[in-house]
Amino acid sequence: MKIKHIVAILTAGLSISAAFAQVKPENQIEYRKSAMTVIARSFGALGAMAKGDIPFNKDVATRHATVLSSLSDLPLTAGAFGPGTDKGAPTKADPKVFSEPEKFKAAYDKFTAATHALPAAAGDLATLKVAVADLGKTCKGCHDDYRMK
Amino acid sequence: MKIKHIVAILTAGLSISAAFAQVKPENQIEYRKSAMTVIARSFGALGAMAKGDIPFNKDVATRHATVLSSLSDLPLTAGAFGPGTDKGAPTKADPKVFSEPEKFKAAYDKFTAATHALPAAAGDLATLKVAVADLGKTCKGCHDDYRMK
Repeated sequence: MKIKHIVAILTAGLSISAAFAQVKPENQIEYRKSAMTVIARSFGALGAMAKGDIPFNKDVATRHATVLSSLSDLPLTAGAFGPGTDKGAPTKADPKVFSEPEKFKAAYDKFTAATHALPAAAGDLATLKVAVADLGKTCKGCHDDYRMK
Repeated sequence: MKIKHIVAILTAGLSISAAFAQVKPENQIEYRKSAMTVIARSFGALGAMAKGDIPFNKDVATRHATVLSSLSDLPLTAGAFGPGTDKGAPTKADPKVFSEPEKFKAAYDKFTAATHALPAAAGDLATLKVAVADLGKTCKGCHDDYRMK
């Protein structure tokens, strides 16, 4: 598979990435890790509410749900897994991210879809619990296959 | 000024941070730097369109404007400048962030407000240019005073 083809798949319909074709690999890696750090924090907050580790607060839950929904696609779409970003800086991205981009994108898209369901679910704890569980499965699904230990 | 007072100022009205009172300083520092990395990328895209370095695209501009508006407060509000985060990991946060938190918050709030104006401005290049210039001033204002070289 040609690099051009891989890039086309990873960025299909995602013109946001076009602006960053020239971003250095190490900066792309830094970007995707940074976005995931922000995502993990908000997911952690919602997970803690779902588990009862911290009190459920509708406003806080909605804020984190909005952050997740707004950011979730960026590591994939905003020029962060481009050619050459399998190395160049420390990364846990599995080589399969780059060798089977269609499958990676399919797994990633499940995650994005699950985050988009969050804002509407965040106002009610019982509903939020279901949405967070669904989201967690998509995190795990992608990390199991595409993130190295 | 007591720590409790500083925390109260930094988190005033910002219950999102309550969930993260126990986050380790090094993780708070990582979080604020990560959020700023994501913010910088989207600001860079809008700046490049404003300068004509890349073509103006209404959809892409709106996407980045939404990211900025959604994320801008997080480094300040989501448990990222708490007690002890003046050190513990590499950081360019100036000691004044912690010694004059009211002034820091006032400078930061100008940035947040400027990002909130972006989504409505992103559909028109001339309007976007003004909004990006306004935003850039607030970035510089805070970095000049509160970010070390």
